[in-house]
Amino acid sequence: MIDIATRVWNRQWKIDPIIRSLIDTDFYKLLMCQSVFRNNADTQVTFSLINRSKHIKLAELIDEGELREQLDHIRSLSLTRGESTWLRGNTFYGKRQMFRSDFMEWFEGLRLPPYQLEKRDGQYELTFKGAWPEVMLWEVPALAVLMELRGRAVLKGMGKFELQVLYARAMTKVWQKVEALREVPDLRIADFGTRRRHSYLWQDWCVQAMQEGLKDKFVGTSNCMIAMRRELEAIGTNAHELPMVYSALAEDDATLRDAPYKVLSDWQDEYDGNLRVILPDTYGTTGFLKDAPDWLAGWTGIRVDSGDPATGAEIAINWWKSRGEDPTQKLVIFSDGLDVQKIIELQRQFVGRVRVSFGWGTLLTNDFRGLVSNDALSPFSLVCKAVSANGKATVKLSDNPNKAMGPASEIDRYKRVFGVGEQEALDVRV
Amino acid sequence: MIDIATRVWNRQWKIDPIIRSLIDTDFYKLLMCQSVFRNNADTQVTFSLINRSKHIKLAELIDEGELREQLDHIRSLSLTRGESTWLRGNTFYGKRQMFRSDFMEWFEGLRLPPYQLEKRDGQYELTFKGAWPEVMLWEVPALAVLMELRGRAVLKGMGKFELQVLYARAMTKVWQKVEALREVPDLRIADFGTRRRHSYLWQDWCVQAMQEGLKDKFVGTSNCMIAMRRELEAIGTNAHELPMVYSALAEDDATLRDAPYKVLSDWQDEYDGNLRVILPDTYGTTGFLKDAPDWLAGWTGIRVDSGDPATGAEIAINWWKSRGEDPTQKLVIFSDGLDVQKIIELQRQFVGRVRVSFGWGTLLTNDFRGLVSNDALSPFSLVCKAVSANGKATVKLSDNPNKAMGPASEIDRYKRVFGVGEQEALDVRV
Repeated sequence: MIDIATRVWNRQWKIDPIIRSLIDTDFYKLLMCQSVFRNNADTQVTFSLINRSKHIKLAELIDEGELREQLDHIRSLSLTRGESTWLRGNTFYGKRQMFRSDFMEWFEGLRLPPYQLEKRDGQYELTFKGAWPEVMLWEVPALAVLMELRGRAVLKGMGKFELQVLYARAMTKVWQKVEALREVPDLRIADFGTRRRHSYLWQDWCVQAMQEGLKDKFVGTSNCMIAMRRELEAIGTNAHELPMVYSALAEDDATLRDAPYKVLSDWQDEYDGNLRVILPDTYGTTGFLKDAPDWLAGWTGIRVDSGDPATGAEIAINWWKSRGEDPTQKLVIFSDGLDVQKIIELQRQFVGRVRVSFGWGTLLTNDFRGLVSNDALSPFSLVCKAVSANGKATVKLSDNPNKAMGPASEIDRYKRVFGVGEQEALDVRV
Repeated sequence: MIDIATRVWNRQWKIDPIIRSLIDTDFYKLLMCQSVFRNNADTQVTFSLINRSKHIKLAELIDEGELREQLDHIRSLSLTRGESTWLRGNTFYGKRQMFRSDFMEWFEGLRLPPYQLEKRDGQYELTFKGAWPEVMLWEVPALAVLMELRGRAVLKGMGKFELQVLYARAMTKVWQKVEALREVPDLRIADFGTRRRHSYLWQDWCVQAMQEGLKDKFVGTSNCMIAMRRELEAIGTNAHELPMVYSALAEDDATLRDAPYKVLSDWQDEYDGNLRVILPDTYGTTGFLKDAPDWLAGWTGIRVDSGDPATGAEIAINWWKSRGEDPTQKLVIFSDGLDVQKIIELQRQFVGRVRVSFGWGTLLTNDFRGLVSNDALSPFSLVCKAVSANGKATVKLSDNPNKAMGPASEIDRYKRVFGVGEQEALDVRV
């Protein structure tokens, strides 16, 4: 029996929208947005797309019209009643009413602001300008749209069974990872793969596979829509955009030096418990921890997001010890460039010494490496970053000089202010 | 939008029937059935299930009630109007009205005869008795039911995603085979996998994958239902049951010696062209060809179904040459224990020397080797054979003594009558 109405309904779609909900985004964006909405609602920011994988000519692969249709569709979205109810009523990190009423009212009225799109040198220049709380919500959907359109471009022209086998292979790959991970004692791992996922449906599949295969070892997903639909924990804390914008707004070197701590002081007013996680690498982890105020040592954990992860965790452990804290009570979240072997290795090295947790991104939700000719579905390094705030350029250094961004003169100034010395350069894969 | 009617309808099924059509069977069964219907309609035969893989305890794996439900369901089937129309109207092997009206009228009225089912030593003794044209149609569906029930027993209790990944892995395996085969020049290959398939849906998937992946190199399927639904060529000629029953009916050694040729003489009255394919191994290929009448050398081809396939083909080539025939105009069909490497090897060895064709069975439609623990889905060697005709035991020798069957005294007699000497014993895998 064919459902005629469904077929007719399907025919009415002009496009197959990639993003179908404003909460098809990372949970930490909403946490940060609420903090920004309270403290910096009027700050004018610019977010820009940056393709670190220059060899992938996105403007040649992706039709501009299709890209505009997808982005326009996102601008047509607003929070649905059910989504709003879930955000207002759900328990996040063990807490009810995580989102304040004034924030929810603002969010319920939100439409995403306009975008600017141009082609240059085979790449898209995609820019979002406006008030920080609005513009910041573009980052994740913009990345997801570009990743998925690139995938669709590669898949176009493949046969029905060829496609089915492609997904069969990708499923097999994910499941092999799940099977390897379920042997790891005391593992705690979450999906962080929204922004560079192969597609929404694929991320949703990966999450469910983790759920079935890993049981309690799978602690949740960063994707709010999937968390809502699959009744999972929404996971996430905060990101580099906070210290980057706070720092750009700093009027002088002294204020700049204090900016990353001001971020966390504001954060502390908003969130507690497992949401008090330090992201220390924006301007170099070592300097950040050395100069950190004592109240920060009382926070729950640290997220290691660049540089050699084991080194980052050792630095954190030593810092906690130096501040009289017990590392075994502290949380270390690894979230950079993870795949199964690295996860197993880090778990072995740190289990029992700290509370270990993993935020697994691209190589969970987009490991299509080796599955089509020319490896044309291999994930690549696409980011969408705050590049300026109130007209002043932002800077990111991180613990890997290959991830540094900002004007050269400002990079030098930041290195001086934050006392960043020699850094080890590591490949940025994804 | 959920189709409520479909859900309610699905709920009404008491079982999930494995065989849903009388033409979910091999095409050659229908060709043989028509010949038997004309020449031996009243011959009483017994067909029995024989599990050559004794270590697979079918009666422990498969619930007797479920098996009876499936077999009873098959007995409730009759030819549908569309199936009858297709058999009457379709072109088979380039010919219209392959099936005579008297045969079709009989077939349209057919229900399969009763079965006897008992358990012994962990195995099922499943027997079919009655008129040859009716009983012979049990073979393929009975095998398919047992293979699929065994699979279902193994799959029971697996998680939803575990199952999806299992099929993903199996699809990947099939597609790797397709990818390897599409590089083989001048390949001609058909699906012969009905009887030992993993399931109907799986066979249907494999056939479609071959269709998309191999294009013209895929020449059709032995399964009539799939041929009809997918608009493919139905492929097949004849099988060992013909010489086995004809021989059992022989009153003396002289008639016995002539019986395998009588089969083909009757066949020649019914079919021509590419359907004139000799299956020479029932009582040893060498003796059969040596003593064959000259008119047989004029037939289109030979099917190699036991023993070392390359040796069998060389014997055929030499035989054709010895009879003044041009082997390059002759067809050799390989159909025993094939997998990709063997297919590629045989194609390389014989392309240009004869017209080569492959009938690929179990390792196309049931290669679940290595996909679950204890290899519990690995295919195994289950057959359903004519064991007696008008009360006399049948015998099969084949070119592999491990495939021989029948009472020991009769085997000795047949070996003497047909002059079978030393044979090389080969493993029977599937």
